[in-house]
Amino acid sequence: MLYFIGLGLGDAKDITVKGLEIVKQCSRVYLEAYTSILTVGKDALEEYYGRELILADRDMVEQEADEILKGADVSDVAFLVVGDPFGATTHSDLVLRAVNAGIQYRVIHNASIMNAVGCCGLQLYNFGETVSIVFWTDTWRPESFYDKIKKNRDLGMHTLCLLDIKVKEQSMENLMRGRKIYEPPRFMTVSQAAEQLLEIVQNRRERGDDLAISEETICVGLARVGAEDQVIRAGTLRQLASCDLGGPLHSMIVTGHLHPLEVDMLRLSAATPDALQDLRMTDSSTYTS
Amino acid sequence: MLYFIGLGLGDAKDITVKGLEIVKQCSRVYLEAYTSILTVGKDALEEYYGRELILADRDMVEQEADEILKGADVSDVAFLVVGDPFGATTHSDLVLRAVNAGIQYRVIHNASIMNAVGCCGLQLYNFGETVSIVFWTDTWRPESFYDKIKKNRDLGMHTLCLLDIKVKEQSMENLMRGRKIYEPPRFMTVSQAAEQLLEIVQNRRERGDDLAISEETICVGLARVGAEDQVIRAGTLRQLASCDLGGPLHSMIVTGHLHPLEVDMLRLSAATPDALQDLRMTDSSTYTS
Repeated sequence: MLYFIGLGLGDAKDITVKGLEIVKQCSRVYLEAYTSILTVGKDALEEYYGRELILADRDMVEQEADEILKGADVSDVAFLVVGDPFGATTHSDLVLRAVNAGIQYRVIHNASIMNAVGCCGLQLYNFGETVSIVFWTDTWRPESFYDKIKKNRDLGMHTLCLLDIKVKEQSMENLMRGRKIYEPPRFMTVSQAAEQLLEIVQNRRERGDDLAISEETICVGLARVGAEDQVIRAGTLRQLASCDLGGPLHSMIVTGHLHPLEVDMLRLSAATPDALQDLRMTDSSTYTS
Repeated sequence: MLYFIGLGLGDAKDITVKGLEIVKQCSRVYLEAYTSILTVGKDALEEYYGRELILADRDMVEQEADEILKGADVSDVAFLVVGDPFGATTHSDLVLRAVNAGIQYRVIHNASIMNAVGCCGLQLYNFGETVSIVFWTDTWRPESFYDKIKKNRDLGMHTLCLLDIKVKEQSMENLMRGRKIYEPPRFMTVSQAAEQLLEIVQNRRERGDDLAISEETICVGLARVGAEDQVIRAGTLRQLASCDLGGPLHSMIVTGHLHPLEVDMLRLSAATPDALQDLRMTDSSTYTS
């Protein structure tokens, strides 16, 4: 049996009791290590689980899947994923390979950012399509996520923005020289995401576009959701551009229509006492900004 | 401290290790019992947790919140919720009451149907607004969820449909006579949801509407997601109307644009060998039906 086990979002103890029991009995345990991170490292997980973990980076999962699946038809192998195994990144490819090889699989679910964002007080019902915001470079500055946010906002929906993670990236020079030397991991902050979004807003304004988002749009920054030192900060897009929410992982929400109960919840994590002040002055049934 | 603890979706062992530790140390433990159910009952949870659980129905949470919060400023109280505490139903009201009473709160997240649906192979990224399908009566047959599904499909998005739960409902007669006698709980099945949707499709066709959904639209029925006896069934809306997925809880997805990898995953749970056959004949980049 191949077990896909979600680890949740915080530390070693966010695994489910069922998941932990399975980890302890499997012949091999892989840790998927390229789409998300916990607040604790591999060592802490190994110590808590009492098991050696085999790091599975993207190359391994994509190119050496047979290695992961080896023997899973006669013994139990676990594949651990931060969050939920079918959260932001699915592992459909590995599932299909397993099934084609006659290997049964089972999923042990857990929280992922896709549902845990509800803790900020915005209703999961009211979220539209989730978008990803990638690190811009000097020459590559995609704006497509803006258009998706716009579509959601036009429908009154909130947008969860997953922020870029660069793990095991090679510099152009090392890549060209075939040197397997990797850059330090980088995680986009809420501030960086907000800065990029502000730049797009400015670009669109100069082009005379109908603006779906402005500097005053209410957004929510989230850092280390589910961990003890989780931070949630609600404020205008401009305010979030200058906030420091600490270490990774960060996510951001661009709000759509806000219901009164959602506003009350956001006030609990307002960036400044008057950050959500203006919302009090709009009509009583729903709020927009 | 008031702890909101998600129980996940399957049985007693789907609680996280962290959640279980907190349950064991709290002075009182409430079990929210009106928005979802596990495959095991209160007794099984009590035995596994080694704790007495106080059932908190909707009336209690809404009208006797002070009772739940009592003493939570000086001792620890846990409020258990099937799925995630901020999943399909949020508990914002209880959070706000706690904060106003100077009581700190913390959330222990877990899987909820809102993210666990990813197990069927459809990407969570590609879901639009979530809708609820309620039981129709002879005189109340709302169709508004159809329009939300249509909006999602127009954007190529999938729609997660949460199906109605009737717990602790009184018959009209008992309500009028003030008798606290409750009807047996009812849980909408995928088949019932599909029947209602088919009826709306027929109504709209007769009105000459532009049809966003037809009898041949690919849908996915899910039952008891996360449990050992979970069932996923992909097929046309017509096929799902006559399927029997067993006991509660059920959910349904109306698909939007399907990517090839999503189609491959859905084939693993096809209602009939040729249920997704037609999808092979469409273009190779994306599929619609």
